[in-house]
Amino acid sequence: MIEIERKFLVNSDAFKTEAYMSYSIKQGFLNSDKARTVRVRLKNDKGYLTVKGKSTANGLSRFEWEKEISKSDAEALLLLCEPGIIDKTRYEVKSNDHIFEIDEFYGDNEGLIVAEVELNSENESYKKPHWLGKEVTGDLKYYNSLLIKTPYKLWKH
Amino acid sequence: MIEIERKFLVNSDAFKTEAYMSYSIKQGFLNSDKARTVRVRLKNDKGYLTVKGKSTANGLSRFEWEKEISKSDAEALLLLCEPGIIDKTRYEVKSNDHIFEIDEFYGDNEGLIVAEVELNSENESYKKPHWLGKEVTGDLKYYNSLLIKTPYKLWKH
Repeated sequence: MIEIERKFLVNSDAFKTEAYMSYSIKQGFLNSDKARTVRVRLKNDKGYLTVKGKSTANGLSRFEWEKEISKSDAEALLLLCEPGIIDKTRYEVKSNDHIFEIDEFYGDNEGLIVAEVELNSENESYKKPHWLGKEVTGDLKYYNSLLIKTPYKLWKH
Repeated sequence: MIEIERKFLVNSDAFKTEAYMSYSIKQGFLNSDKARTVRVRLKNDKGYLTVKGKSTANGLSRFEWEKEISKSDAEALLLLCEPGIIDKTRYEVKSNDHIFEIDEFYGDNEGLIVAEVELNSENESYKKPHWLGKEVTGDLKYYNSLLIKTPYKLWKH
C-alpha cells in the first residue's frame, strides 16, 4: 500500500478538547538499522515488538512483522534499547472524513507537537483544523527515528 | 546461574550412533551488538526470537527474553538477518551424568564439528567419550557469533 502522509506543526492546544481518544506511546529501538529495524513499543498497557525490513527498490513496500507482547516484557525490553526512548501522547481528532494524529512529545523532545493526516492520493483534499500550523512534510528531522538521534531540545530554536 | 561449559573438537563421527536425539538449528541475528542481541532461531519446526542484554559487571548474569514464534515467521525473519546464517545439526549424547551437545555445521562452516558439555563447577569431573578431541574452551573463534563473521571456510587450515 502506498502511504501518503502530510505532517504539520500545531498552533495551539485546542486539538486536545477535540480529540475523541488519546493514549501514551513509549518506543525505542533494539536496532535502528534500516535493513532490519527492531522496535519496542508500549501503547498504554499493550506492548508490541515490530521488525521491519528494507524498503523495496521502488520504495512502495516494506516487510513488517509485529507481535503483541506483555506490558512487563515491553518495559524490560525498552531498558535494553538504543539510547533515546520516544515518549509521547497521541491524540486522534476527526476532521470530516479524515483523522489527524497529533503527537505531543516529552523528555528530550518536550515542546514538540506534530500532527499527521493520512491521505489516499496526493491530490486528496482535507479540511484543515483551525489549530493546524505550518506544513513540515518531508522534513526528515521530524521523523521519530531522527528525533531519537537529534532530539528537539538540541535543535537551534 | 553460572554456566561452566567446556568445548572440544571431535575425532570421529561415532557420536552420531550414540546420540539419543538430534535436531536442525538455523539461526541468525537481527542485531549482534552485545548490548542488545536479537537472535532468530529455527529449531526443527519451532521458531524462537531471543533478546539478550549485556552481561552484568561481574559477568554472571545476562538479561534474556525469549518468545516462541511460528516456523513461517522465523523463516521470514531469518531472511532479514545480518549476513551469515548459522546452519547446523545438534546431536545430544549422554555420558554418565552429563550430556554432550555436538554441533555439526553446514554452509560456510561445513567441516566444523564442536562438542560441548555443561558442568556445575570448574572441578567437576566427567567421562570423556572416545570420540572427544582436543579441548578448545575459551577459543573465541568457535563462538557462534564469531563463526558468522569469520566462518570456518575462511580459517587457515
